[in-house]
Amino acid sequence: MERRDQTKSVLAVLDGEARRPPPIWLMRQAGRYLPEYQAVRRKAGSFWTMCMTPELAVEVTLQPISRFGFDAAILFSDILVIPHALGQDVRFEEGQGPVLGPFPDLPGLVRDPVRWAVKLKPVYDAMRETRAKLAPEKTLIGFAGAPWTLAAYMLEGRGSSDQRAAKLAAYHDPEKFRALLDILSEAVAWHLGQQLEAGADVVQIFDSWAGGLPEQAFEHFVVQPNARVVKLLQERIPGARIIGFPRAATETGYRRYVAETGVNAVSIDTATSIRWAADSLPKTRTIQGNLDPIVLIADTILADTRGRAFIFNLGHGVLPETPLANVERLVARIRSAT
Amino acid sequence: MERRDQTKSVLAVLDGEARRPPPIWLMRQAGRYLPEYQAVRRKAGSFWTMCMTPELAVEVTLQPISRFGFDAAILFSDILVIPHALGQDVRFEEGQGPVLGPFPDLPGLVRDPVRWAVKLKPVYDAMRETRAKLAPEKTLIGFAGAPWTLAAYMLEGRGSSDQRAAKLAAYHDPEKFRALLDILSEAVAWHLGQQLEAGADVVQIFDSWAGGLPEQAFEHFVVQPNARVVKLLQERIPGARIIGFPRAATETGYRRYVAETGVNAVSIDTATSIRWAADSLPKTRTIQGNLDPIVLIADTILADTRGRAFIFNLGHGVLPETPLANVERLVARIRSAT
Repeated sequence: MERRDQTKSVLAVLDGEARRPPPIWLMRQAGRYLPEYQAVRRKAGSFWTMCMTPELAVEVTLQPISRFGFDAAILFSDILVIPHALGQDVRFEEGQGPVLGPFPDLPGLVRDPVRWAVKLKPVYDAMRETRAKLAPEKTLIGFAGAPWTLAAYMLEGRGSSDQRAAKLAAYHDPEKFRALLDILSEAVAWHLGQQLEAGADVVQIFDSWAGGLPEQAFEHFVVQPNARVVKLLQERIPGARIIGFPRAATETGYRRYVAETGVNAVSIDTATSIRWAADSLPKTRTIQGNLDPIVLIADTILADTRGRAFIFNLGHGVLPETPLANVERLVARIRSAT
Repeated sequence: MERRDQTKSVLAVLDGEARRPPPIWLMRQAGRYLPEYQAVRRKAGSFWTMCMTPELAVEVTLQPISRFGFDAAILFSDILVIPHALGQDVRFEEGQGPVLGPFPDLPGLVRDPVRWAVKLKPVYDAMRETRAKLAPEKTLIGFAGAPWTLAAYMLEGRGSSDQRAAKLAAYHDPEKFRALLDILSEAVAWHLGQQLEAGADVVQIFDSWAGGLPEQAFEHFVVQPNARVVKLLQERIPGARIIGFPRAATETGYRRYVAETGVNAVSIDTATSIRWAADSLPKTRTIQGNLDPIVLIADTILADTRGRAFIFNLGHGVLPETPLANVERLVARIRSAT
């Protein structure tokens, strides 16, 4: 028992063990709410520089582990490294979200892993260095955006509340859109594989814009591409552990996603009932989530997931305004759960 | 049978009749996608002027009925007439969404229906005049924003993708926030009652930001206030017909909403499966929806709702970019359904 608790708790739970207290990490745990992060950010000058400078990425990745002792570190990076590798211009403007250059269209996309590897070398270097510095009992997480979410960014050129450009593209030229999703699925699977080979213990696929899609579109744009990513990744690295996050999916959507993609675990968004997930999703899949980043009240989530393989997390990422003391109290509370 | 078909088809379906073809109207059917609407808009100078000038509101309300022969007209107005009546400044800037003045805080809110009636007289005048001009077989719909959605606008000062200001207010001072929801529930029920008395056949409550709320928050901020609105309205006007729209609720959320609010009908958003709704929601409630405004493919929706009391609609409002020909084809397609 003693020895068991020294192992990576996130991995144990991903492999099906129900633990009390559950392991805990927070999406966007390395972020603006941390003064030590802000100091690095000021030094770096930009978010993108931090992503692409291994020394800085490693430093901020480890900051929340040092401060709060989370059970997992997630590499500091961004989902838009894939459009960047594919040859689309990506910029982060201060005070607003990312802005992408014109979509290079299918023939203009770089489809050569050798060239991807050159562009994304800083990410894999940062992963290796993080693994070297991270305590062995801590889990290291890599990640990527899912094909639909990336396609939406690439076609819209920025964040969008209704993914209008991507939907219009999908409806006007379904074959071309499917081809884009295929290219993205290959790039995403490749990028996740590189991260695992560079030292990540597990990877998470963020489909941040899975919500709002009609049922059939959800099947074609979310479920099928995620399934393809999982398949490609498992072929390359048998036994690869994968967490899926089809954010804001419906309950029917979550059910299909879990049934059809082959992910080991699914991260539940804030609006979806974690009790519903614990009761209704197959017990063979680990669940993760789903505290509203705006509130830090965790007791119900603990009660609702008793006896399930479960990883404590937020329903989406930590907000910049979050007081540090709240995160400290949260971690203490989860750690004292029985 | 002949005679029956001459009655208001939306009302027949709200009263439980399953009709083929189903009645059809589109949320935001009076909007920028119509050239005749744009002409009135240019003349009026602003969206708000159109809302508050009965002659103009009546004209644009009737435009889509003339052009497409929809089965229902929905009064051209805005959910922010309630913050306006309560004394908060509301402006519509060209090219962006609405902007509200500072929240007057609870003691600063106008709570006197006599004063509300003065401020909202143009809305009720427009309703009376629309009823006079609308063909008797067409249903006339009034509407209001739901308390949570209005509270989010009032506290944030504008549209918000995550309703952060409202959530923070709710979590920091729950009693005060509850008091705000109570005031809003009274104002909403009153406003809906006024519209019914001025000639509306049915009213719809738009909880546009019901999505993204954790389970308990959904219960307290969406379900309970909507239930209170329904109760107050039914007390004032027994038999009042009410359509609820808890947009982007989870399936569990829709189930609770329907079970607990007492609405006659529920409008289903684009991402929620209409087949799920048809199969899982109580057969005593009419369902409405849920075509993605971005696509106009209606066949599946017709198949999935066969045998149910059902009103064809979108999952949210018509987009300005929508080609008129698509709406024409849509109406023809629904009308030819068997």
